[in-house]
Amino acid sequence: MKVAIEALEELVTANRILAREGVVDGFGHVSIRHPARPDRFVMSRARAPECIEVGDLLEYTLDGDPIDPGDRKSYSERFIHGGIYQARPEVHAIVHHHSPSVIPFGVTGARLRPLMHMCASMGYDIPTWDSQTKFGDTNLLVSNMAMACDLAAALGHRPVALMRGHGAVVAGPSLREVVFNAIYLELNADLQMKSHALGEVTCLSEGEVRACLATRASYTFERAWERWCRRAGRAYDERPMEGPLTRV
Amino acid sequence: MKVAIEALEELVTANRILAREGVVDGFGHVSIRHPARPDRFVMSRARAPECIEVGDLLEYTLDGDPIDPGDRKSYSERFIHGGIYQARPEVHAIVHHHSPSVIPFGVTGARLRPLMHMCASMGYDIPTWDSQTKFGDTNLLVSNMAMACDLAAALGHRPVALMRGHGAVVAGPSLREVVFNAIYLELNADLQMKSHALGEVTCLSEGEVRACLATRASYTFERAWERWCRRAGRAYDERPMEGPLTRV
Amino acid sequence: MKVAIEALEELVTANRILAREGVVDGFGHVSIRHPARPDRFVMSRARAPECIEVGDLLEYTLDGDPIDPGDRKSYSERFIHGGIYQARPEVHAIVHHHSPSVIPFGVTGARLRPLMHMCASMGYDIPTWDSQTKFGDTNLLVSNMAMACDLAAALGHRPVALMRGHGAVVAGPSLREVVFNAIYLELNADLQMKSHALGEVTCLSEGEVRACLATRASYTFERAWERWCRRAGRAYDERPMEGPLTRV
Amino acid sequence: MKVAIEALEELVTANRILAREGVVDGFGHVSIRHPARPDRFVMSRARAPECIEVGDLLEYTLDGDPIDPGDRKSYSERFIHGGIYQARPEVHAIVHHHSPSVIPFGVTGARLRPLMHMCASMGYDIPTWDSQTKFGDTNLLVSNMAMACDLAAALGHRPVALMRGHGAVVAGPSLREVVFNAIYLELNADLQMKSHALGEVTCLSEGEVRACLATRASYTFERAWERWCRRAGRAYDERPMEGPLTRV
Repeated sequence: MKVAIEALEELVTANRILAREGVVDGFGHVSIRHPARPDRFVMSRARAPECIEVGDLLEYTLDGDPIDPGDRKSYSERFIHGGIYQARPEVHAIVHHHSPSVIPFGVTGARLRPLMHMCASMGYDIPTWDSQTKFGDTNLLVSNMAMACDLAAALGHRPVALMRGHGAVVAGPSLREVVFNAIYLELNADLQMKSHALGEVTCLSEGEVRACLATRASYTFERAWERWCRRAGRAYDERPMEGPLTRV
Repeated sequence: MKVAIEALEELVTANRILAREGVVDGFGHVSIRHPARPDRFVMSRARAPECIEVGDLLEYTLDGDPIDPGDRKSYSERFIHGGIYQARPEVHAIVHHHSPSVIPFGVTGARLRPLMHMCASMGYDIPTWDSQTKFGDTNLLVSNMAMACDLAAALGHRPVALMRGHGAVVAGPSLREVVFNAIYLELNADLQMKSHALGEVTCLSEGEVRACLATRASYTFERAWERWCRRAGRAYDERPMEGPLTRV
Repeated sequence: MKVAIEALEELVTANRILAREGVVDGFGHVSIRHPARPDRFVMSRARAPECIEVGDLLEYTLDGDPIDPGDRKSYSERFIHGGIYQARPEVHAIVHHHSPSVIPFGVTGARLRPLMHMCASMGYDIPTWDSQTKFGDTNLLVSNMAMACDLAAALGHRPVALMRGHGAVVAGPSLREVVFNAIYLELNADLQMKSHALGEVTCLSEGEVRACLATRASYTFERAWERWCRRAGRAYDERPMEGPLTRV
Repeated sequence: MKVAIEALEELVTANRILAREGVVDGFGHVSIRHPARPDRFVMSRARAPECIEVGDLLEYTLDGDPIDPGDRKSYSERFIHGGIYQARPEVHAIVHHHSPSVIPFGVTGARLRPLMHMCASMGYDIPTWDSQTKFGDTNLLVSNMAMACDLAAALGHRPVALMRGHGAVVAGPSLREVVFNAIYLELNADLQMKSHALGEVTCLSEGEVRACLATRASYTFERAWERWCRRAGRAYDERPMEGPLTRV
């Protein structure tokens, strides 16, 4: 069962947006769960996100095996996506990235916490997963299902987990939402470092984070998405406000 | 009574400039008081500032009710503008933004103070309004007149107020002046953070701020405006130096 | 006696380069001493540097009086240039700017010092002039000859002086050299702030600065100038290595 | 024996990439060892990297003497390359640069250490060479073989050495690898400064660095190279994954 071309184009757009906004450089990747087959996900072959085109997109099983790859090489960390989709049925999109301002929070004791309403969707409690704990000295790549499942367990039911010396994962119910969260995660991290240098920081309260999450709405993501499409040189596909955010 | 097309085009230009200069991203908004009807203001429908066109502009009552919106959705924080226009008859333009360097001053005890002559128009005393104080745990959006009036009271007769965990408002007698102030507020905040890291900071004295405010002139705003129009890809409308800055 | 069109085009190019490289924004200005009349200098009318064209250039006496301005308004701080040209016969070009990383050194006790060979041409000893000392509470603008002469005295025989809460002046024997120094002054300031946060900083020794100044050569400025012209969208005028750097 | 045009075009591309990604500005240079004559290297005449074309490339002996320069001037620091190629037969490409975030580590006691897997190829132990130690007060330029050999000795068998008050050298087995390392060295330095401000930093362990180095593969460099070519406006020359990375 084929994925609609609109969904594939949207995944290309997500790649280009994440590149344009500085969340990914030549590395990092974004996937969607297959709209019709929840036991599959869709992601590009191994290529820099800003170069990706529809013909680069591949289907994968939730164990990270590519379907019909031909001569197209896969990302060695595709397991991250499989592991999280297995553990989280409600998740329909995942970003793995090395967003620069996020790295310092993964390698120090400083806790990343939302300090601004736009960034509340990262949640109140952001864990840091360290591959060293269970897997010892590795090249830090999540290159098998054992590591991916351990990462997924650390993520739990949260939207974001940091990875020590590596990056972060962002998981959520729709592609536009995870792209939004990845971009505002980078902003929050940058602002938190700057705030930290000025003095004690008042982050959002737990109640404020809950209120933000309860009232987040698709039109927020839409407003940002239109702008990001324009900046990335991609057509904006305005969707009706009703219905699931992930067009299938 | 219709607003002249030149005034509408100028409001579009202001949106594009604020986006180009990094004061707003997909969020934030700028309005003008209706040139002929002081009980109305003009602002875009809910859309990212760099995408806005003349057809997106709507009239609002000072209670934040849109006139003839059709199917155009409004910003949920339009009340900010209504509340300040109600309280401040001399104000003809308002920007609400989440300018990145300004956020750290809203979430720490550090006081934002002008340290450079170009930034003196922010005034000497900049309050921080906290929605938590009167309204408790919310999603921080100023989405009704009660919150807007409370914010307007905190602003008082000043040109700038910060909003904890949220952003800032800039109010003034003309559109070009508030755009100028919003851009140089961001610069001052960035430079103040850097200066703070070097040692004790000598800000402008109260007398210097008064002298700057007393001698600010429309040609200062014009010189910057011509450049900002060019950078934003908008035509520069050179206005006579005489007369009110807000063309009506 | 008219200034050769090549010299005027080069002054336009200098304005565009300083804007492109972030040394000036809408404000700041650069001048050359008149090649044939040392009692005059050439500078643009009051306009943002990145908008300046040949037709904007005016001649001034060393007291800051414009010759044949017509309806073209002058920068209110043109006196800075007159004051320094009066005091320093060997100076043939001057930049006044508010380069962002330089501001923090003017408002704190931190001393700006060259920490990298490319930046040695700023000299070893950089004074900070404070308009408050002799002139009290002003709008900080150097808007008359008394202030300009006081600033020139603080500058003395050095290439650079900072101005508290305002910016800096860079003076030198040729236009390409002062542009070079202004751009690398900004870089040094940025790097010094970052180094300061890491620990005690080893700046260049006095002997190293002297060795850099003794061996600086026009081809260094040329190599950078070609690149800056390209970035600013201006034709590169390759000059013979012999002869004075300022084409007359 | 002439160098293949593809190798020369790739060297031009390397120059443009390093400029586009901010590792070099008007200064800094990159060379390859002559593919057929290991006693020669190829590098541009003295020109800003982003302006370089194939016609600017010259051959040099390992003593830094240009072959057939005609009227083309050489970089005064070409000896850096000769000295390292003499000392390190396995090295086929070298970058010398003043990458901004790297400078602070050369002028303070802070040690640059990899904190992220992408940056592990800089190695675990990065020395800082100080020209002052043996050569006293100079203009810091490595302008003869004595200085170059001293620098090469400090570098030893490592991929990277810092130069106090000056910059860094990056040496390696292929052009794409040294460009990759130079760009991620800059990133690591930036992230390490930011992390340092947050608290104690957990860098990669020696075992993790070893694991990263053992598993680095040409396809990693390829993925980045395609993107960098696109950003620099250069054609991407996709090479087979087999064979030496340096096309000869």
